[in-house]
Amino acid sequence: MHKDLLTGLREYITRERLFAAGQPLLLAVSGGADSVAMTHLFHKAGVPFAIAHCNFQLRGTESERDEQFVRQLAETYKAPLYTTRFDTAAYMEQHRVSLQVAARELRYQWLEDTRAAEGYAWIATAHHMQDNVETVLMNFCKGTGLAGLHGILPVQGKIIRPLLFAQKEELLAYINEQGLSFVEDSSNITDKYTRNFFRHRVLPPILEAYPAAVPHMAGTIERVREAELLYQEAVTRHKKKLLVQQGNTFMVPVLKLQQTAPLHTIAYELFREFGCSPAQVSQVLELLQSESGRYVATATHRIIRNRQWLLITPLAQQEAAVIVIEKEQSHVHAAGGHLKLRIQDRAALGSIPAAVNVACLDSKHIRYPLLLRRWKQGDYFYPLGMAKKKKLSRFFIDQKLSLPQKDNVWVLESAKRVVWVVGMRIDDRFKITEGTQEVLCLEWTANY
Amino acid sequence: MHKDLLTGLREYITRERLFAAGQPLLLAVSGGADSVAMTHLFHKAGVPFAIAHCNFQLRGTESERDEQFVRQLAETYKAPLYTTRFDTAAYMEQHRVSLQVAARELRYQWLEDTRAAEGYAWIATAHHMQDNVETVLMNFCKGTGLAGLHGILPVQGKIIRPLLFAQKEELLAYINEQGLSFVEDSSNITDKYTRNFFRHRVLPPILEAYPAAVPHMAGTIERVREAELLYQEAVTRHKKKLLVQQGNTFMVPVLKLQQTAPLHTIAYELFREFGCSPAQVSQVLELLQSESGRYVATATHRIIRNRQWLLITPLAQQEAAVIVIEKEQSHVHAAGGHLKLRIQDRAALGSIPAAVNVACLDSKHIRYPLLLRRWKQGDYFYPLGMAKKKKLSRFFIDQKLSLPQKDNVWVLESAKRVVWVVGMRIDDRFKITEGTQEVLCLEWTANY
Repeated sequence: MHKDLLTGLREYITRERLFAAGQPLLLAVSGGADSVAMTHLFHKAGVPFAIAHCNFQLRGTESERDEQFVRQLAETYKAPLYTTRFDTAAYMEQHRVSLQVAARELRYQWLEDTRAAEGYAWIATAHHMQDNVETVLMNFCKGTGLAGLHGILPVQGKIIRPLLFAQKEELLAYINEQGLSFVEDSSNITDKYTRNFFRHRVLPPILEAYPAAVPHMAGTIERVREAELLYQEAVTRHKKKLLVQQGNTFMVPVLKLQQTAPLHTIAYELFREFGCSPAQVSQVLELLQSESGRYVATATHRIIRNRQWLLITPLAQQEAAVIVIEKEQSHVHAAGGHLKLRIQDRAALGSIPAAVNVACLDSKHIRYPLLLRRWKQGDYFYPLGMAKKKKLSRFFIDQKLSLPQKDNVWVLESAKRVVWVVGMRIDDRFKITEGTQEVLCLEWTANY
Repeated sequence: MHKDLLTGLREYITRERLFAAGQPLLLAVSGGADSVAMTHLFHKAGVPFAIAHCNFQLRGTESERDEQFVRQLAETYKAPLYTTRFDTAAYMEQHRVSLQVAARELRYQWLEDTRAAEGYAWIATAHHMQDNVETVLMNFCKGTGLAGLHGILPVQGKIIRPLLFAQKEELLAYINEQGLSFVEDSSNITDKYTRNFFRHRVLPPILEAYPAAVPHMAGTIERVREAELLYQEAVTRHKKKLLVQQGNTFMVPVLKLQQTAPLHTIAYELFREFGCSPAQVSQVLELLQSESGRYVATATHRIIRNRQWLLITPLAQQEAAVIVIEKEQSHVHAAGGHLKLRIQDRAALGSIPAAVNVACLDSKHIRYPLLLRRWKQGDYFYPLGMAKKKKLSRFFIDQKLSLPQKDNVWVLESAKRVVWVVGMRIDDRFKITEGTQEVLCLEWTANY
């Protein structure tokens, strides 16, 4: 236990290099104990912050009460406040995902959009040590790789988790000690069953056997996280040795791959960015024993045995690179996935879905026919939330796309303007605004 | 679940390259369901085997009954049988270890001695998937590194675990199907509390949440095992870059170490073979900021800041390299540990302790004074269980000692003959035999 939570926070920020002095934070605040403690701690630490609150509208008046509570909190700290309301139920329905997935996707997408649009350096969430331990334990029981065992990362993209060092009991003690009020954490609602089951049924007997299990598991998680960096280092070196590029075809020498160990893991890491699923790795490895001409088709590529090589070619090459879409079309197939189109009234849409594979555009700016085509050098667009245009090649670097991932990006074009980098970001000029009446809804589903 | 356990076994043997066709196995058989199933499976597979049974003498007549049962089993399969009896209680007392540790040390040491002496290629134990999952879950909750998460290894030294692929239910179904009888597994007795607690209190709620948790956890464990190989590969590369050798001093360049990431993990892996404990790593890292002359003393070495280097020198260099021991001495201090000596009647000794840090020698062959000294090139001995002499340098290679580990080996000499490679193996010519009356008992305790 840390004698002083504020000191603990400062040390953790330094140790994990969470952010630089003066960088403004956007705190994700549900109003629950954890996020209230986080807000108070950053206030005491003198770190400038704004508050963001999502109303999932799942618990009627309670959801309203929570929102009101957070509004009060923002006033108390004189912090800028951003709030939004999600039609979570509609999103679940539309995307056929669980409440948990819906809430997470909506929340993180909106937080990131708000962060980018309003110019905050980082989003901070109030995950603590117990959350982390529960997550890893659940991943372990569900089956996972090393990545599932490293737990919740202190830094991930633009999100930081400054309370991972702290135990739940410490945060509650801090709340009591400082006399802070809070509401029931609605984010707990969003993954009610399994997490609460682990919290109330699995963890207690573990703590009976090992009273210090939580910090000990947290230590394990931290060591796994460091070990994973070394793992990645070795994987990168193997990939470099095994992948030969010629134009937009990649080749892997059969003999060299056969001699690589551990074969299954390396093969997975090698082929996953060419759309190979974990279940397909064994099929790909069978190619090492097969005759020339046999191949495995992944979501995005074909992996073909050709004499002493495995050739990896994008599926796109074998199909039309430009697809013309007329206004009346509602469904389009393309290499790697399919696109659904639908026009509807703004009022009927409800809240705007936040999943990256869905785009909602203002119909009045759209000109037909649309073109669905591969991106090309020189393409640019105005990424949602930005006032300046950006080259796609630059955008892909920011998004950390690998070469083969880039090969598979589609863009949707209207009157020579990119309206959507498919599955990634819409163009700001086509977004829905106050004045929007009719909406073009697009949904991209990848083939895996 | 595997339709056919025998096919599953064959596939697992091939996949993990457990042993080569024709290599004779020594099966560790308690008489419990798991080891009975293993014996039957190897019989069906046509693999030649002998049976080894340890009687821990912990459960009175039941222990005798189990031993009788295994004798019967060996007769049924016409397999050579090796049995032994341990005074487990005395060993616990003498070494101040838990029942679990005592039973494990006694068992594995005796199995290995028997294997080596009788010329079997491998020892096979009947650990199955559930055992593995329980072990990893317990390690995770206790706090561990990557090594604790890879679980029970299919191959470890001369021990193989051919049933790790199988679930407990499959083995029980096989036992039923084949109409095999078995006794209660006495090895369950040996780690009663925590393992049984996990089995009966922690696993059931997990299985309620995730019915397929056991195979899924086993999958996770397998992926961690492969990931660990890549981890080790990266660690080895870093060590090679960071360690500079001059004579028997190793040096680490401060600047290079400072720039290494992940620093804590690399530092641990780098200094652990120089006796550095996990808890000492932070102290060693503080040397990166300190002035020349500061040092950390590990169990075996001194790590000294010297300008832009960390120098690692064996403690041994700074102390006497030869210690003379007279007959009346009962206690001797040396670099890295201390030695206790005691002479007693053979009858009073009971069963021979199997821990490697204890040596029991036939007094009548011992000549005083004894010399405790560092080993040197040219030293040889007759390793216990072998009829031929072996150079120590060769023996250390077999034992996979690292260079710094070798630097710290003591030998005990009597009349110019090595009677004990301290903490590792006694000389066969000095072992206790039927005719032994008086025993020289030696116990080495390392300083960590």
